[in-house]
Amino acid sequence: MTEKLRTIGFSKLTPLKDALEKLNSKIQINPTEEIEIKDALNRILADNIISKISIPPFDRSAMDGYAIKAEDSFGASPKNPKEIKLVGIIEIGEFSKFKIDRGEGIRISTGAPIPEGSDAVIKIEDTEIEKDLISLYTSLVPGKNISKKGEDIKKGTHVLSKGTELKAEHIALLTSLGFNKIKVRIRPKISIFSSGDELLEPGVPLEPGKIYNSNTPMISALIELYGGNAIRGETIQDDKEAIKKKLLEAVEDSQIIIFTGGTSIGTKDYLPEIIEESGMILTHGIAQRPGAPVLIGFLSETLIFCLPGTPVAAYVSFLRIAGPAIRKMLGCLVFDPRIEIIATISKDVPVSALGFLHHLRVNLEKSEEEFIANPVKLRGSGVISSLTFSDGIVEISPDQEGLKKGDKVKVKLFPK
Amino acid sequence: MTEKLRTIGFSKLTPLKDALEKLNSKIQINPTEEIEIKDALNRILADNIISKISIPPFDRSAMDGYAIKAEDSFGASPKNPKEIKLVGIIEIGEFSKFKIDRGEGIRISTGAPIPEGSDAVIKIEDTEIEKDLISLYTSLVPGKNISKKGEDIKKGTHVLSKGTELKAEHIALLTSLGFNKIKVRIRPKISIFSSGDELLEPGVPLEPGKIYNSNTPMISALIELYGGNAIRGETIQDDKEAIKKKLLEAVEDSQIIIFTGGTSIGTKDYLPEIIEESGMILTHGIAQRPGAPVLIGFLSETLIFCLPGTPVAAYVSFLRIAGPAIRKMLGCLVFDPRIEIIATISKDVPVSALGFLHHLRVNLEKSEEEFIANPVKLRGSGVISSLTFSDGIVEISPDQEGLKKGDKVKVKLFPK
Repeated sequence: MTEKLRTIGFSKLTPLKDALEKLNSKIQINPTEEIEIKDALNRILADNIISKISIPPFDRSAMDGYAIKAEDSFGASPKNPKEIKLVGIIEIGEFSKFKIDRGEGIRISTGAPIPEGSDAVIKIEDTEIEKDLISLYTSLVPGKNISKKGEDIKKGTHVLSKGTELKAEHIALLTSLGFNKIKVRIRPKISIFSSGDELLEPGVPLEPGKIYNSNTPMISALIELYGGNAIRGETIQDDKEAIKKKLLEAVEDSQIIIFTGGTSIGTKDYLPEIIEESGMILTHGIAQRPGAPVLIGFLSETLIFCLPGTPVAAYVSFLRIAGPAIRKMLGCLVFDPRIEIIATISKDVPVSALGFLHHLRVNLEKSEEEFIANPVKLRGSGVISSLTFSDGIVEISPDQEGLKKGDKVKVKLFPK
Repeated sequence: MTEKLRTIGFSKLTPLKDALEKLNSKIQINPTEEIEIKDALNRILADNIISKISIPPFDRSAMDGYAIKAEDSFGASPKNPKEIKLVGIIEIGEFSKFKIDRGEGIRISTGAPIPEGSDAVIKIEDTEIEKDLISLYTSLVPGKNISKKGEDIKKGTHVLSKGTELKAEHIALLTSLGFNKIKVRIRPKISIFSSGDELLEPGVPLEPGKIYNSNTPMISALIELYGGNAIRGETIQDDKEAIKKKLLEAVEDSQIIIFTGGTSIGTKDYLPEIIEESGMILTHGIAQRPGAPVLIGFLSETLIFCLPGTPVAAYVSFLRIAGPAIRKMLGCLVFDPRIEIIATISKDVPVSALGFLHHLRVNLEKSEEEFIANPVKLRGSGVISSLTFSDGIVEISPDQEGLKKGDKVKVKLFPK
């Protein structure tokens, strides 16, 4: 019995790095779709963007004031104002045919086009007006308070790269270039399953020996944060035929299936058998803690991730393996979107086993000069509170013998 | 004319700190609504959560193996195995009435309840089985491989605070406690308007003297990132009656109206007049750069933010003023959700005027030991590319004479 369990289980653990390399070589980038810019937040840009216009598209006033010839202001001061004549007003949005000569000024608003002949704008606060005579109280250098055409972006500039995750500032940039539609990558459709006879759906009374299934909603939230499209989330009993039926159904409409539970070497862990029989196992067993019993495989074209059933192990395995796979399909520039900060570790952290990548949960304290990373006491990979009491993860590489108090570490913040 | 302009404009600038204090004293927390946990990502929790159950709810096995009495394994080693008798199997999800005595073991899966009488679980890998005789190859201390009831969370523990922004890990925690619905704060409904005769909607050909309106989609994306509900986004011509009509309509269904443009002292800046006539101005003119011409006011119960028309000034004013107001309505623990990291500034940054809070855009480089913040060259508050080329903002306080190369600075990362 031991022998059989060992054979179907993972006798050899693969380094995470190797597993990810093998996985990445199998992932294709998704096709594109065109969407409206108003729906573009958090989507992944599919094309490089070259500006087809200059921004600003014309020389424009950066102030409310008067467009003048700078030389008319030379020597002006509050005690020795210079006078010019008001010859017109340019409203914002108007493209005026006005032309000014020496001794003339035109009232102009912030953002309005500079009239021909003018090379400076004097702020309204630095002037006074009496009928059509403007007194200038300060001396301007040519170019003062004018935003030159193309100052922000020159026509023909590469402004955004394909693979950019679109945030408010990118949406502003694209819109200012005139885009109202944009090509993005289609979000991968993902099915989530949890297996386990011990699992209850939240909302029903707790029964002896059972626990609530927290993995499906957790993975669903992570998929959303990583840009995927969770189309199905179900709990299945630990029955081989039931699991197989569900999987083969989901293959029809899912690019990815994420399964939690059912991958260890317990008596009812049918999943590796099913993948082996009907598909292909890419990796089974990864040298990481928590999260060793991860299986990566394929059923037809559908990528299968079987993550451990314990929530913390499922969480870190998603962040390190399934999440980046989603982002690779989306053509992201960065597969791991977590923000990484540098901190000083507050105490020694020995590791229990060399050869494993350890995911150390830490919470952060901020001093004036640096971040301090406090390891959160670990009591097992089922301990969800170790996540909610933490801010992020420090990875201890397989060849590191642990961390020493005072070491600088990189903390990958939890995805927000 | 100058005199009149100065009167309706902002002759005195308010420190940002004071403006925010005044604003915050006027903001009430929104009422709550009950939603399903599957829709809870990014929502703001309205209640403190006290655990009504223990997690795990029972002593359970942390390994696949055999539940035994630890003392039966004392002295066991690969060369000197101890033998016990298999008396049953406990499947996961089963609450068994089994009871074991000295010399007995029960096959148990990870997560299954520990039977009465057992005080340790020996891993399957550390055993061999021949018919019903189990050989134990290692010695266990009592408690080994058992997750004790309440190890993760004890019944009655305060596990989450009201005001928490719910992420994947919180959703996992709430679900594991049995919640399938949760009370959150209702998202404030927000209308966005931009005014300006120079503004074109993206998608139409560019005309002389005009620019594309990028503020409405940018603000809309920011509102979404801050947890608000953007219900309307429109561009209005610079016409006082048209603006007034739109505002008074939007007051009916909006908790907040965000206006961009129309707040400076140009010839067509009707907005302050309208707010003064029909509502109340709280602050007009803030001592910050960019972003001085901000107006904060009320029309009936609706909070009005008039942000500058230049995109960068509108962006930073949103992050510092309008965004935190949304989060205060949501009852968030932290009004400014931006991640703040510590970095070293790479060059001297003189400031142009004391008394102003300066929002310095920087991009970040990471070395092994620290982050370097490189100031992004500023050419004006209209320069959207200064945002897309940056990673965040360093604030230079009104009493600081600038930054010196090598100074430690706090960088607030752009909201993602």
